[in-house]
Amino acid sequence: MDELARPRRRGRPRGADSGDTKARIVAAAAAEFAEHGYEATSIRAVARRAGVDPALVHHYFDDKAALVSAVVEVPLRPDHILRDALGGPVDELGERLLRGVLAAWEAPAVRSAATVGLRSAMGKGPVARMIREFLRREVMLRIATELGGVADAELRAELAASQLVGVVMLRYVIGFEPIASLPVDDVVARVAPAVQWHLAGTGPILDSRPAQGNNSARDE
Amino acid sequence: MDELARPRRRGRPRGADSGDTKARIVAAAAAEFAEHGYEATSIRAVARRAGVDPALVHHYFDDKAALVSAVVEVPLRPDHILRDALGGPVDELGERLLRGVLAAWEAPAVRSAATVGLRSAMGKGPVARMIREFLRREVMLRIATELGGVADAELRAELAASQLVGVVMLRYVIGFEPIASLPVDDVVARVAPAVQWHLAGTGPILDSRPAQGNNSARDE
Repeated sequence: MDELARPRRRGRPRGADSGDTKARIVAAAAAEFAEHGYEATSIRAVARRAGVDPALVHHYFDDKAALVSAVVEVPLRPDHILRDALGGPVDELGERLLRGVLAAWEAPAVRSAATVGLRSAMGKGPVARMIREFLRREVMLRIATELGGVADAELRAELAASQLVGVVMLRYVIGFEPIASLPVDDVVARVAPAVQWHLAGTGPILDSRPAQGNNSARDE
Repeated sequence: MDELARPRRRGRPRGADSGDTKARIVAAAAAEFAEHGYEATSIRAVARRAGVDPALVHHYFDDKAALVSAVVEVPLRPDHILRDALGGPVDELGERLLRGVLAAWEAPAVRSAATVGLRSAMGKGPVARMIREFLRREVMLRIATELGGVADAELRAELAASQLVGVVMLRYVIGFEPIASLPVDDVVARVAPAVQWHLAGTGPILDSRPAQGNNSARDE
């Protein structure tokens, strides 16, 4: 790490090694997230705590979500998976989301780090809180928005997420066979209809259900 | 804990406090599971290591699964949930399984311990291995057997489990709203069709799907 050998960029503080600076920003972000949670933390507050200009934070990190990824050391961006899945026809959103999640978790390096991240999200401390707030804000609420004006959009987003998380758990984290070795296309064929059912409630499942409605209590 | 005040039962070793004995059996089971895994561990081997008669192990623990529950200190018996769900009509198996899982996790005391157990299952050590082997043997393979002669019965069991685990994660472990506060019957109405689709491939989802089949690769 020869500091002099590397080109300087505008906005980097004099005398600071970029690795040091970046680490200081990540540490500051971790502290801010721990104190205030994901939503209430701003890039500006992170910069202030790190003693750098906000522009420098933006130089290293595109957005607040990138800081979360750095803090938990998980090279997985659920918000990017979602962004890539949005925008197409809603009746294929389930499949696009599922393919995005599967593609991300197929990489072994991502898998082990993301497993640690998932376990962290299940805990009780400030890191868990940060991850949950992040997922709620950057994934759940964005899916709900994509679903438009339906009253139960947030619930639908969560139900779809439940199916996605469950497949990740069985296939990648716990690694049961045969699901762990099933080709991606086969996983999609099996699981996408369930994700889509949760998201849109149209399509195969709902269309042919009895007229009892899908939101009412049922007698046994 | 006045030993003299409690009635003795046949088979208990003289002079041993029953709590001590039980703890010794649990410790022995933990060691055997860690060395040999769930499947290869026998009640007899646990008794030998604990220095007690196998009948005494059976006195405290109905079966090997009960030893797993004691080792991980989780008062949740997935094998019992499954046992209670089996036996009825297969086309309602998804709903029965889902209701059993929800009923178990509704109890706050179970919930926090079971969350720890679920996190343990996601790890890499011998406890994780034991839990996974236990779930595979006592849950997945039994569901697959219930599904009869279909070639993909194990895969179907795992896919159903993925939906069940995912709902547990979102509703009880991560606790996203609104799914965390949704009445049980509403959760069942939303999720049971997905579980059933995975299990049986029949029901509302399949009936109205396009004729592409549910197991073939699809072009994007």
